[in-house]
Amino acid sequence: MKTLMDYTRAEDWVIAEKAFNSELLDKVEAIMSLGNGYMGLRSATEERYLKETRNLFVAGTFNKFHEDEVTELPNGADLISIEFFINGEYFTLDKGSYRDYRRELNIRTGELHRCFIWISPKGDEIDFHFYRIVSLKDIHVIAQRVEVKAINKDLDIKILSGIDGRMTNSGSQHFTDGEKRFYHKKYMQFIQSTTESNIDFVHTSTLSFFKGNMSFEPESSTIMDRRRIYSSFKVSLKAGEGMTIEKVSNVHTSRDLDNQGLSLEELQDKALKELKSAEAKGYISLAHESAKAWEETVWNSCDISISSAEAFDQLAIRFAQYHLRIMTPYHDNRMSIGAKGISGEGYKGHSFWDTEIFILPYYIFTNPKEARRLLEYRYLTLPGARRKARENNYRGAMFPWESAWLEDGEVTPVWGSADIVTGMRTKIWSGFIEQHISADIAFAVWQYYMATGDQEFMDTYGYEIIFDTAIFWTSRLEYSEEDKLYHINDVVGPDEYKEHVDDNAFTNYMAYWNIEKAMEYCDHIKANSKEVYHRLDKVLDLRGAYREWLDKKDKIYLPRAREEDGVMPQDKTYLTLEDIDLSKYKKQEQVGLMFLDYNLEQVNKLQVSKQADIMMLFFLLEGRFSMDIKKANWNYYEPRTLHDSSLSLSTHCVLASDMGDRALAYNLYKRACRIDLGENMHSSKDGIHAASIGGMWQCIVYGFGGVRMVDGHLRIEPRLPEAWRELSFTIEWRGQALRLTIDKQKLIIENLTGKEEVTFLHGGRTYRLLHKLELAMNDKK
Amino acid sequence: MKTLMDYTRAEDWVIAEKAFNSELLDKVEAIMSLGNGYMGLRSATEERYLKETRNLFVAGTFNKFHEDEVTELPNGADLISIEFFINGEYFTLDKGSYRDYRRELNIRTGELHRCFIWISPKGDEIDFHFYRIVSLKDIHVIAQRVEVKAINKDLDIKILSGIDGRMTNSGSQHFTDGEKRFYHKKYMQFIQSTTESNIDFVHTSTLSFFKGNMSFEPESSTIMDRRRIYSSFKVSLKAGEGMTIEKVSNVHTSRDLDNQGLSLEELQDKALKELKSAEAKGYISLAHESAKAWEETVWNSCDISISSAEAFDQLAIRFAQYHLRIMTPYHDNRMSIGAKGISGEGYKGHSFWDTEIFILPYYIFTNPKEARRLLEYRYLTLPGARRKARENNYRGAMFPWESAWLEDGEVTPVWGSADIVTGMRTKIWSGFIEQHISADIAFAVWQYYMATGDQEFMDTYGYEIIFDTAIFWTSRLEYSEEDKLYHINDVVGPDEYKEHVDDNAFTNYMAYWNIEKAMEYCDHIKANSKEVYHRLDKVLDLRGAYREWLDKKDKIYLPRAREEDGVMPQDKTYLTLEDIDLSKYKKQEQVGLMFLDYNLEQVNKLQVSKQADIMMLFFLLEGRFSMDIKKANWNYYEPRTLHDSSLSLSTHCVLASDMGDRALAYNLYKRACRIDLGENMHSSKDGIHAASIGGMWQCIVYGFGGVRMVDGHLRIEPRLPEAWRELSFTIEWRGQALRLTIDKQKLIIENLTGKEEVTFLHGGRTYRLLHKLELAMNDKK
Repeated sequence: MKTLMDYTRAEDWVIAEKAFNSELLDKVEAIMSLGNGYMGLRSATEERYLKETRNLFVAGTFNKFHEDEVTELPNGADLISIEFFINGEYFTLDKGSYRDYRRELNIRTGELHRCFIWISPKGDEIDFHFYRIVSLKDIHVIAQRVEVKAINKDLDIKILSGIDGRMTNSGSQHFTDGEKRFYHKKYMQFIQSTTESNIDFVHTSTLSFFKGNMSFEPESSTIMDRRRIYSSFKVSLKAGEGMTIEKVSNVHTSRDLDNQGLSLEELQDKALKELKSAEAKGYISLAHESAKAWEETVWNSCDISISSAEAFDQLAIRFAQYHLRIMTPYHDNRMSIGAKGISGEGYKGHSFWDTEIFILPYYIFTNPKEARRLLEYRYLTLPGARRKARENNYRGAMFPWESAWLEDGEVTPVWGSADIVTGMRTKIWSGFIEQHISADIAFAVWQYYMATGDQEFMDTYGYEIIFDTAIFWTSRLEYSEEDKLYHINDVVGPDEYKEHVDDNAFTNYMAYWNIEKAMEYCDHIKANSKEVYHRLDKVLDLRGAYREWLDKKDKIYLPRAREEDGVMPQDKTYLTLEDIDLSKYKKQEQVGLMFLDYNLEQVNKLQVSKQADIMMLFFLLEGRFSMDIKKANWNYYEPRTLHDSSLSLSTHCVLASDMGDRALAYNLYKRACRIDLGENMHSSKDGIHAASIGGMWQCIVYGFGGVRMVDGHLRIEPRLPEAWRELSFTIEWRGQALRLTIDKQKLIIENLTGKEEVTFLHGGRTYRLLHKLELAMNDKK
Repeated sequence: MKTLMDYTRAEDWVIAEKAFNSELLDKVEAIMSLGNGYMGLRSATEERYLKETRNLFVAGTFNKFHEDEVTELPNGADLISIEFFINGEYFTLDKGSYRDYRRELNIRTGELHRCFIWISPKGDEIDFHFYRIVSLKDIHVIAQRVEVKAINKDLDIKILSGIDGRMTNSGSQHFTDGEKRFYHKKYMQFIQSTTESNIDFVHTSTLSFFKGNMSFEPESSTIMDRRRIYSSFKVSLKAGEGMTIEKVSNVHTSRDLDNQGLSLEELQDKALKELKSAEAKGYISLAHESAKAWEETVWNSCDISISSAEAFDQLAIRFAQYHLRIMTPYHDNRMSIGAKGISGEGYKGHSFWDTEIFILPYYIFTNPKEARRLLEYRYLTLPGARRKARENNYRGAMFPWESAWLEDGEVTPVWGSADIVTGMRTKIWSGFIEQHISADIAFAVWQYYMATGDQEFMDTYGYEIIFDTAIFWTSRLEYSEEDKLYHINDVVGPDEYKEHVDDNAFTNYMAYWNIEKAMEYCDHIKANSKEVYHRLDKVLDLRGAYREWLDKKDKIYLPRAREEDGVMPQDKTYLTLEDIDLSKYKKQEQVGLMFLDYNLEQVNKLQVSKQADIMMLFFLLEGRFSMDIKKANWNYYEPRTLHDSSLSLSTHCVLASDMGDRALAYNLYKRACRIDLGENMHSSKDGIHAASIGGMWQCIVYGFGGVRMVDGHLRIEPRLPEAWRELSFTIEWRGQALRLTIDKQKLIIENLTGKEEVTFLHGGRTYRLLHKLELAMNDKK
């Protein structure tokens, strides 16, 4: 598959598409998608194509199409379509020809720009420039600008644009068709409401026309149709003449915090009023405002600078930071981050452990306030987690594998794609037995606490999560009369190619850790924060829970490395399974190709892993395992891992870096970047890979930067890739902003806040830093 | 708008498209649609286009998307898509170029054929032939055949085809996503169930590949996705080599009469078994079987032969008969005919008075058994009609303006398109106050009875309909103290540009007629069919009803013609409204253009009509009005009628013929034909115009053939258009098949059955015919 991508304008913060192929729209729609955490807008084009996916999602507006489906983010009405008929010819790049094509996302400003000269089948030449933003300043606003210039002929142009509510989620329609309204023939408003969650979406939009700086009113007519409202405009241009169209739209929902208490009518009025004021500003001001917000709230506070032989490396991390911002609902702690952000239908907007394990570290180390908000979300979902535990005959908090709205509880779908052997649908077991997420969330709470020292958070939310997940684990343990130990049987670990396994090492160790941490904190607050202790004791029966922890913790079966080679069994049977030649699949460019030859039941019986499992354990609880063990297991498991999950490569990159293999680490980083930025024009079809994007930051800061929280302490052990001359970035640790500048010779750490001393580990020694420190880099390897 | 249509192969029964424009797909999809009364399949192409409308409807499978919407025919899964990637290039006629293009519907055989040579952007030349039928023999079967030949290059072809359940009705999804299954990697099955009416749709499909006559199994893989299941095949062709693909599919639903009592699993098995047997026959046999059914069940029994200077005239009536067959659910009396047949989403599959007044006459005179079935449907909907009456505080049977499933009652939507003045949606009043349909249905019962003498039908169904609608009318009448008469106020008559009118002439006269007929039949059965009388008396209280009829009938206000000019007021105020210059709108090619300048409230206040209203009254109750009155009203109303309804032209054609204006009648006939067959490539967007198609038959048999039921008698008064040399057709009258052959000199009538004497009127005289009669034509005018 030929790549259309162009990353050569890295210095301008631009990712670009250099040619257009209407068969290959998915990738660019997703990776160039716009957003602000409130909404995510896929970058489908103004004109329409058969294979486009037009998506506008508003975070947290989950709806269930039918009782047999799971809840998902509904695809809102399309606001961005603008169709042109030029001298009677429908404008599409599939007809006629074009030259000077560029489509660019400026990551710094969040502006999408597309330009080309179209030569119609009749030979009319038209210069088009399309600009678009989703405002980071006013999260409800979408603004577009189109510049059209007649080059060689006079043009009669018909323009159709409005609000199209015929969008679905792959055929599932989440909305009822609601009120449609024109105000003064100029402002269009379309309301649709979700069918089950009853959320009203108010879409409001208007178009303005200019020749030069003069606005004008073209001849127009208004059309209302089933599920859509639009206007038709007629404009004539002389050869050489140009015009500008600005379309300003906004989206409000009745679920938005800033719309609480408003009646639908009031919300309609508000949306219209705000639209008029945005329209009055005009596109250029709106784009400027939004770019300023990007500068001030993102780039100024979290600049990562990479001086590399490959400019792409710098671009890639900015790409990651761009997407981390637009996927994260800063504005509302009732929402978390979806596994595809809000850039596609994939995973239905649901949140997985991806948020806590792959994305949260970015926020913990760069924006602790936002990290806290994300953890508050999990706290607010505790009722659902408790219900899930009860429904499964457990106690405590059993977090859902997939999480949506606060009260939803478990929302993992039950059925997947075709089983090539039976011809029937495959059952998805994650929602039932992929249980490690409860420990992962507890781990994230701990990591946040260690990095920030946010005691108020712990008192209010954090302890309760750690205790209640520990209570879940004690209720989950299964006693074996045979070895007199507790086991965790019939689970899916991180490696989803092994279903129904017993004693998955990752799960058992993390459960053990969870209980251990709960006991430690229980002891601590009982001694030091009696009020917190008594409050939680009332809710959770801490006394009873503690007795059980004490009784069971040391009887939990924890797999050990084999004497002979240090290999730790991923689960009870993995090492006994058939070992086949995987080279065919290891070389694959696409993921999941093994399923063209095997079904999941067969893959279950082979020594093949989708992703890091044991390696993930070493990554999270790194202080618990020796480097020798880590290397032995790397050598065993990595060759058996297909990296079919986008969660796999970044973890391996960090571990390769830890093990000192810079070349391999760099190679894995590149591969991780290619998950979204690579040559495969279909890989991001259903949306960007949020965990992988969080993982890109981990590769750089955890891997090459060597920054980690280990056993509660900050450790800094950089190992730059060969190609990199310098890496610098800022992290926050216990309220102090630290600027790290790393090159081959030295590591400079500056405490930008400079108010408190920061303690960190480096090269086996402990340092204390109040202002600035320069350390020689001695790990040349 | 340039026409793409070609009707020059009229002698081959072919309507054709001579060039392809992916912007203008609607018309051909609808007018070339396939079907068999059980299902209607729009003729969208195998490859997909942005502006396509893929529709597969199964008659009677109504579902309501949401309580705020009305029930409609849901758009089933797409079975016909077959996508080709040729040497990596997606095949679409929008790219590269093509030559020798034809798309043809053979009306005689019901086969769609499309062929062309495609030259890909890379210069590969491929000869394509696509064939498709919906079987008239086995109503569940769809069969396709594609012949692909490599002309100048070796080709690697990838083919994607399967079952796609992502279809919606303009965005409304009526189905849940159900089970998907591959059997032996070859047979695909996809089940979806309607969300509210809980009808299971079982779609089953398979593809077979041949080179020459040898079948082969290409490399393939199977894909299940959300709401779809499909296979991917790879085939290589050498330059000069060809292959054939056959795709056979079937559709079953749990609502089908022939599937009653089956569990879903049994239905799945049945569908699979039937598919295998259809597949074994192969496309050519299936197409042959179906063509034979067309010959035997349609063309042999209802041949209309026109010898005209314009071959199009013959083609047009065959086109009408073709569509009349595919739109009519012969197989199930729980269903009627939709206003767009089953060829589009328009009017949601609902039945209107169109069925009884515009289509039923075709069946009454050519296939009385089918006419009876259609009237049985109305009988079966009586409970809903009674409920509607009760809900409106009336008694008797108030038939719904729009009718769907038996129990649904009124299903007219409440909201229409934009009001250009207020910017808000227009309220649709028909469901509330367009009440004449109850009399129209009674009229149809009478017409059927008169033409067939089917006493058993009357005893079982017919009388009850006529009595209960008469009961409705007496409860509907409003007494005025002023003139001591009964009025019918606040209605919409046939002319829907006049809402909320009092004393609409058509409505009042038809109500009067309805009551009069009920009294006549009540007297008759009381005297002659006591058992029927007592049975109906028990159900309807005939004694009480009769007293009320007697009391009110002669006090019903019936508008009279004005003394001075013979003009009868269409309603109480019409003649007092503002009279404007309509020439701008009378000349229009598109309908409804007036609404770009006025809203309905404004149109309501002008002397402008959408369609025949008074003229309709003269048409139905023609014996009641003199020719002078008819002409006076024609001269007044026709210039004020925009013919914005497809129900208008055929009525005017018949009346023009009655009035002896052959040229005008012929002109109106041509215009009526052009509603679907004309140059406007958008006119049939939402489906063919069923009433207009029924009207085409009326133009010929009622108009030019002069055949009519007048006051219960058969009247034959032909008036051929100038251009026609001869017209011959067969009608059935009271069990006798009559063949009429008409030319400029004579009328020959042959009683083909020859069992009973047929009485008819001609030229003011009564004739009796047992065998054959030749009459000179004397109305040369």
